[in-house]
Amino acid sequence: MTLFEKLAGNFENLIAKGTLKLGDKMPSIRTVSKEYGVSKNTVIQAYLLLESRSCIVSRPQVGFFVCLKEDQRLPMPQASSPSINGAPGKEDGLIGKVFSNFVNKSITQMSLSVPDESFFPVARLNKCLQTATKTLAAGGTGYDDIQGNLRLRKNVSKWSFTWGGNLGADELVTTSGAMHAISLAFMALTKPGDRIGVESPVYFGILQLAKNMGLKVVELPTDPEFGVLPQDLEELIGEIDICLLVSNFNNPLGSCMPDENKKSVVELLTRYNVPLIEDDLYGDVYFGASRPKPCKAFDTEGMVLWCGSVSKTLAPGYRVGWMAPGKFIKSILKLKLFHSISSTTVTQEAIGLFLENDYYEKHLRQLRATLYSNSLHFIRAIADYFPKGTKISRPQGGFVLWVELDKKWDTGKLFDKVLSRGISIAPGRMFTLQSQFHNCLRLNYGLPWTDKLEQELKLLGQILKE
Amino acid sequence: MTLFEKLAGNFENLIAKGTLKLGDKMPSIRTVSKEYGVSKNTVIQAYLLLESRSCIVSRPQVGFFVCLKEDQRLPMPQASSPSINGAPGKEDGLIGKVFSNFVNKSITQMSLSVPDESFFPVARLNKCLQTATKTLAAGGTGYDDIQGNLRLRKNVSKWSFTWGGNLGADELVTTSGAMHAISLAFMALTKPGDRIGVESPVYFGILQLAKNMGLKVVELPTDPEFGVLPQDLEELIGEIDICLLVSNFNNPLGSCMPDENKKSVVELLTRYNVPLIEDDLYGDVYFGASRPKPCKAFDTEGMVLWCGSVSKTLAPGYRVGWMAPGKFIKSILKLKLFHSISSTTVTQEAIGLFLENDYYEKHLRQLRATLYSNSLHFIRAIADYFPKGTKISRPQGGFVLWVELDKKWDTGKLFDKVLSRGISIAPGRMFTLQSQFHNCLRLNYGLPWTDKLEQELKLLGQILKE
Repeated sequence: MTLFEKLAGNFENLIAKGTLKLGDKMPSIRTVSKEYGVSKNTVIQAYLLLESRSCIVSRPQVGFFVCLKEDQRLPMPQASSPSINGAPGKEDGLIGKVFSNFVNKSITQMSLSVPDESFFPVARLNKCLQTATKTLAAGGTGYDDIQGNLRLRKNVSKWSFTWGGNLGADELVTTSGAMHAISLAFMALTKPGDRIGVESPVYFGILQLAKNMGLKVVELPTDPEFGVLPQDLEELIGEIDICLLVSNFNNPLGSCMPDENKKSVVELLTRYNVPLIEDDLYGDVYFGASRPKPCKAFDTEGMVLWCGSVSKTLAPGYRVGWMAPGKFIKSILKLKLFHSISSTTVTQEAIGLFLENDYYEKHLRQLRATLYSNSLHFIRAIADYFPKGTKISRPQGGFVLWVELDKKWDTGKLFDKVLSRGISIAPGRMFTLQSQFHNCLRLNYGLPWTDKLEQELKLLGQILKE
Repeated sequence: MTLFEKLAGNFENLIAKGTLKLGDKMPSIRTVSKEYGVSKNTVIQAYLLLESRSCIVSRPQVGFFVCLKEDQRLPMPQASSPSINGAPGKEDGLIGKVFSNFVNKSITQMSLSVPDESFFPVARLNKCLQTATKTLAAGGTGYDDIQGNLRLRKNVSKWSFTWGGNLGADELVTTSGAMHAISLAFMALTKPGDRIGVESPVYFGILQLAKNMGLKVVELPTDPEFGVLPQDLEELIGEIDICLLVSNFNNPLGSCMPDENKKSVVELLTRYNVPLIEDDLYGDVYFGASRPKPCKAFDTEGMVLWCGSVSKTLAPGYRVGWMAPGKFIKSILKLKLFHSISSTTVTQEAIGLFLENDYYEKHLRQLRATLYSNSLHFIRAIADYFPKGTKISRPQGGFVLWVELDKKWDTGKLFDKVLSRGISIAPGRMFTLQSQFHNCLRLNYGLPWTDKLEQELKLLGQILKE
């Protein structure tokens, strides 16, 4: 046995005994080399061997993490199969119930779809806010340009190069978060009775907004790994007037459409003159080697309204978002003016400054590593504690997991049960307007990983086993 | 002749010669007493005599101002008489044209409806913003409560005592400015085809939003002094499903409904089950002895949706507004959540702190004095330079004036003419959807009063006389 094989065996033991747990970051090459008195090259060879055995996984620019052996993995849920003219499920007040506990700090909020505040670069943002009051005329008290803060638009434009985007600042409109962008897009493109195609399951806010505006929601079959498949969309193209996709790390599934699917989908929709609203607010939080492209990257005719924000990566409370509305920009600008005049000047400038100073990439690198590690911790804990037969999604980005329990479960009732134990989960039925997903739930793993959290997942598992 | 009569005669001379001009603040009682070697009492008697002769006017807590002698006054415009099923005027792109010059600093922006930035307490607001990042958890990066920042709501509630309001913090919802509040109210209360009664003329943003949402706008006859009269509204009550009034210092007229009219209007609307959206964002900028009550003060059934903001008094760029939506609060909260989740956390907290620390009253006292003085300067200059037959409104608050020119004028064309001379005005046709007010314009006197401004009003007059 060579030295590096011995070293690898050593680590494999530590993993087997649970000293190194799923999701833990492996010690750095330099540390191991020092500790074990071996060359760095030996450590690298050992790590590569462990990777080939699926014991650890490397994340570019971050390091190696303990990962799941294939045989330990829980299965993934099947692709969803909503009915096309599905009868709406009955109004159950679930969303109100979940949101009413939203600000309660004593509850572990696994139900929210935002990373914990402790992951945000608060000191740096405070500083940017302070600088913004100096760089702006009259401290930012004046109305902003209707199209939005120029520094922010310039930097979002620059940032779009990370996915090969080539957006000019004049193609972007700032908004008060991504939901505001979607709301503007709905107002610009739809009238009551129009049919909108969306993933199923999908973020409940989108469903509620569409329903509230009198749209007919067409839920599309959605794969937990690849999102909406082009062939499924093609089959249903006659049923929809407009489409909305969370193309990268869909909330709640974590699915990500492959590039070639995105291209096919944009071509298909363009051919049928169906505008695509793309909610890409999780795209920057990827676990792979590079940022997945949005559908917008394949948009040649201005049919894609690309929407983003910093609400999931920096500061939801700043209400800073944007959209590149393609050929619909004029109506979007008009609507923004009519409904709210302009966005908050000072927080837009602060985020513009944050992006301009390259703080964003550094922050994201850290955030991605933490979230990736957390996702593995959660998957391992669920595999350890939840009943057999549980299925979970495998998000390659974002911070939410989709869990499918045995058919007998009603997660609406489970919500009440676990809330009384200080844990909040998001029941599956929130993410559909039809009567489905009653045995599913969404968990937010964007929380600091602690023993308490592990114990709470254990408790969840115990309740499920009772 | 007594000493105080002599002194008064002295000042009357200075006014007649133009040394003291309309809108100028009279020297303080202490200064005059020192300068002329007379007792303070003598000065007071002299000032009271001048007031009885309509040469000066006292403003509580501020001082005395040179005012207009009755015989110098230009007449007021007549009450408007829009047609009830008025054919819409043709789309003329005026609003776009006026707004496209909005950020051009080299143009004198008499067309805007916001006081000049130099009137805002910028340093104090910066300080509050900085404090807000400390008083808020995680520097205000987190989502705000959906109903809105508690400190802000508590202080708006407290502030409502200035008009005898008795609003609890739990009756208030914060918004991103007053237009956002109106947009939420429209969404909650109307469907396309509904008929909405509004003043005529009225702020174009309200008209455009209503039109865009498919509402049928019913323009109501409006008196330039007293707004919509109860008897006029009663006559038309069958023609409207919902009503929106800018009860205090309507933009663009400056009209203010008397208390008894407000009471009658609320009773009338309640009797006919017509909700009233009240846009009260100018109410704090009064020139009289006390703040005029809003219609909300007479609302016993929760039928009035009272909307306000700090956009006209402190910081439009902060996008901080609020509403007390009466019995419609549940749908408003739902819509706020669906369309934008929450408002900007940190600017709401900053304004909450500003109000809490009693800075607001001090600031308003100064702002009111400046704006009142400016209104007199403008009225005097218009009387001096504009052609005979010009009519002007007499705002008792706010910062906009309504000017009616000879019938032959088209202020849409005048806009182009004066823009080339570096002045922007707001043509009357912007403030109606019908074909009327082509010979009217709105002027913003919320600009620092300077010789340049006087010369520009003179130039306007010359162009009108050509």
